[in-house]
Amino acid sequence: MASWTLPGGTKAAHTGSSTDRPDGANLRLGIAGYTFLNVPVDGAIAMMKRVGVNQLSIKDFHLPLNSSEDTINTVRAKFNNAGITIYAAGVIYMKTQAEVDTAFDYAKKLGVGMIVAAPNPELLSYVEQKVKATNILIAIHNHGPEDKLYPSPADVYNRVKGLDARMGLCLDIGHAARAGADPVKAVIEYAPRLFDLHIKDLSRIEKQVHPIELGRGVLDIPGLVRALKTVSYAGRCSIEHEMDMKDPLPGVAESAGYFRGVVKTLE
Amino acid sequence: MASWTLPGGTKAAHTGSSTDRPDGANLRLGIAGYTFLNVPVDGAIAMMKRVGVNQLSIKDFHLPLNSSEDTINTVRAKFNNAGITIYAAGVIYMKTQAEVDTAFDYAKKLGVGMIVAAPNPELLSYVEQKVKATNILIAIHNHGPEDKLYPSPADVYNRVKGLDARMGLCLDIGHAARAGADPVKAVIEYAPRLFDLHIKDLSRIEKQVHPIELGRGVLDIPGLVRALKTVSYAGRCSIEHEMDMKDPLPGVAESAGYFRGVVKTLE
Repeated sequence: MASWTLPGGTKAAHTGSSTDRPDGANLRLGIAGYTFLNVPVDGAIAMMKRVGVNQLSIKDFHLPLNSSEDTINTVRAKFNNAGITIYAAGVIYMKTQAEVDTAFDYAKKLGVGMIVAAPNPELLSYVEQKVKATNILIAIHNHGPEDKLYPSPADVYNRVKGLDARMGLCLDIGHAARAGADPVKAVIEYAPRLFDLHIKDLSRIEKQVHPIELGRGVLDIPGLVRALKTVSYAGRCSIEHEMDMKDPLPGVAESAGYFRGVVKTLE
Repeated sequence: MASWTLPGGTKAAHTGSSTDRPDGANLRLGIAGYTFLNVPVDGAIAMMKRVGVNQLSIKDFHLPLNSSEDTINTVRAKFNNAGITIYAAGVIYMKTQAEVDTAFDYAKKLGVGMIVAAPNPELLSYVEQKVKATNILIAIHNHGPEDKLYPSPADVYNRVKGLDARMGLCLDIGHAARAGADPVKAVIEYAPRLFDLHIKDLSRIEKQVHPIELGRGVLDIPGLVRALKTVSYAGRCSIEHEMDMKDPLPGVAESAGYFRGVVKTLE
């Protein structure tokens, strides 16, 4: 297991390495597992290989939280044998202490250094104990205006800023924008706690709007990349593609291409 | 039929308009028809709609050169009804005067303002007469080191620079690089005669190397886009995807995304 330096300077365990960058970008692309809602593991692997992205935040429909260690090892091996690193698991909701325990057990068995999570706020102190005990990062996911717990990145940041430095944010730029937040400003403002990113685009800034391919909408992806470079963001930039979910490959490919084009131009 | 201004200042007929830019870019994406070698017309239309590209340089396997006017009208209507403009036809080889006549007749019936062509050099004077008679542009395609006629963009430019200003170059950046030419310099140097582009990438600069998705290789696409902006290039930037030809959609999507990402970042 390698170690990495958080933007804020804290060392934390994670499973990636600086060599797994097939796209040559300083900012590593990943895939947020929800993208594969209707795609089984083998199909997801084939798609990731096709688009040259080898970092996955796995979602539970590919590997249920109550899986046996054998099942976890088998599924992880499938991805690893294809050159894919499962760098995180999530989004995992945690409504009880038992669910917190389950999530951390799962993450430990899976060997990931980060849980992308939505814990109930009253559990944050318990989550912090688990973070301290396991050295597993918690990246809380902002889920937009409908979300009662963490609609915008500020709602996450304000909850975690006083807690252990390994508790931070998975910034979902689409949900952030729908909630009225500026994803570019959020990167700068919350940099020390920014551990993961879900990237997508929106055709317009509006509460109800559905995400689309990167570059087809109005989100400022070049501005986002500039901000990520400014703060020396060390995490992944994971495409979460939530349209054409029975056939996500073309959209994922287009989004991967767009992000790489922006990153390359700003090199 | 609209008219456009060539980079050099010459007015020429063409079938596009400034409103057909669904990707919001100043540099319009297109598809070079060879991409669809194994994809029938209906599939090609579906793929172009999926990736949001509406400019096609049609290849003869979708519409043979000896097609009847009815067939031409039917195929063109299929594309047009899907919002796709056939802006050029090619690459069309011309080894005899009769083949030159056939190509121009075809282009006239099809209503395109440009033929992407590889005429035998001894026919260039005859081709020039046809250009003057029809006002149809000839964009000669450089085809790499194996090509006896036009291996590099310089070989095209040197042949056309003394001829009618409507005779120019379809710069294929992959074949150009394989032939030892720098595509970025070619854009600047041959700007007044640059009418069309075939874009792709190469994993390394080498004669035998096969093209890949934009952004996966070593060609300087941001540099290319900067050069195109410097010379106020007014043509299309057409993706010619020559891998996975039985299933080109993901690669086309990735290339389209990459190009848009570069263009957006340089806005």
